[in-house]
Amino acid sequence: MHKIQAIVFDVFGTLVDWRTSIAREAQAHLSPLGIQIDWTSFADAWRDQYQPAMEEVRTGRIPFSKLDRLHRRNLDVVLADFGLNHVDEATRRKLNLAWHRLDAWPDVAPGLLKLRTRFRVAPCSNGNISLMVDLARHNNFVWDAILGAELARDYKPKAIVYLSAAEAFDLAPEETMMVAAHSSDLAAAATAGLRTAFVARPDECGPNRGETVALVPVDLSVASLLELARVLDT
Amino acid sequence: MHKIQAIVFDVFGTLVDWRTSIAREAQAHLSPLGIQIDWTSFADAWRDQYQPAMEEVRTGRIPFSKLDRLHRRNLDVVLADFGLNHVDEATRRKLNLAWHRLDAWPDVAPGLLKLRTRFRVAPCSNGNISLMVDLARHNNFVWDAILGAELARDYKPKAIVYLSAAEAFDLAPEETMMVAAHSSDLAAAATAGLRTAFVARPDECGPNRGETVALVPVDLSVASLLELARVLDT
Repeated sequence: MHKIQAIVFDVFGTLVDWRTSIAREAQAHLSPLGIQIDWTSFADAWRDQYQPAMEEVRTGRIPFSKLDRLHRRNLDVVLADFGLNHVDEATRRKLNLAWHRLDAWPDVAPGLLKLRTRFRVAPCSNGNISLMVDLARHNNFVWDAILGAELARDYKPKAIVYLSAAEAFDLAPEETMMVAAHSSDLAAAATAGLRTAFVARPDECGPNRGETVALVPVDLSVASLLELARVLDT
Repeated sequence: MHKIQAIVFDVFGTLVDWRTSIAREAQAHLSPLGIQIDWTSFADAWRDQYQPAMEEVRTGRIPFSKLDRLHRRNLDVVLADFGLNHVDEATRRKLNLAWHRLDAWPDVAPGLLKLRTRFRVAPCSNGNISLMVDLARHNNFVWDAILGAELARDYKPKAIVYLSAAEAFDLAPEETMMVAAHSSDLAAAATAGLRTAFVARPDECGPNRGETVALVPVDLSVASLLELARVLDT
């Protein structure tokens, strides 16, 4: 563990509460059009399109596209599924940027500050660079760099995304720790040779519907980034 | 000018004083070996190898390599030219990282802070990501992202490097301003469609040996980043 020099982070769910934020944004943009639906169901439906869209890139069926573009395509699908084809183009564009305005879990900004005193820190997310930049500004995250899918031009859990993050920092995989609230992400990072830390976000998918314990072997399990900073002695 | 949403920066010479810093680092690493040479001549000689090395990548003769790797190859050439083939491998490795420890011109950190209140800011340098990360930590630069050669996987002045920086921020070229102390960099950025600002660094190559005025048409000419922030009304 003493070899770790950088910590890279999953973002959606791990650092930010996408579900509550997207539900709020959907309501803010769609209710003025007279639309009344279950906003958290809408958020869940939008998020459900996330993995299938990236899978098209991962398998090479479509060339790499920024997540913003995939989110937009997915939004059109979900609006149709909810019988909301009449939502205008300008509203769709604004709503699509809701992913740039997600709120962080409360421990994240102070935890990152502490961790950054000793480690290089960067997101290793499937979100595009501009999305990460906006989330950082919205939530006062201080990053050393924005790493992840757009740099690797492919999507997690493909190994190249984790490896390109370590490589950007001039580090071996084992000198880099991946932090996520999702066992599948950590399993892929570990297979790529990174150290791993699970952070529990039990409310990510609604009250107590997130992962509370890692379902795969990890190097550390913590309840918050502040606990991670304490365990790593920063 | 009111359309500008991001400002991207050349780094070597424009934000940091490579010549004084490299001369100091060369002395610090080589004089303990009993070597006495003209340290600024050594810095100039190392820098003279910079463009020819990148040209090999730009023309496709060698695949993209991080600038750290090119710097290392160039260091070996310059040590040989100075009759210093006996310098050991460990010293070469440490000295090569001198580029990660260059000191900024005094206006840069406060100027970036002001500019960042209104614009997204990022380096658009030929330096690799880890080099930019270390310079930011060394000099208290606060960046939104690290853009430039390693993201584009090619070297300035090729248009892809400027365009990939604008694209990472989801901006059109004309919504992005390139800042540099070198006319050739600004000419290439302007050709790619970016707005341009010249910042004078008259002492970059020794007292009064840097460019004092832009030799090409630019949108703005300033004497410091603080003046740039004033002109752009931040």
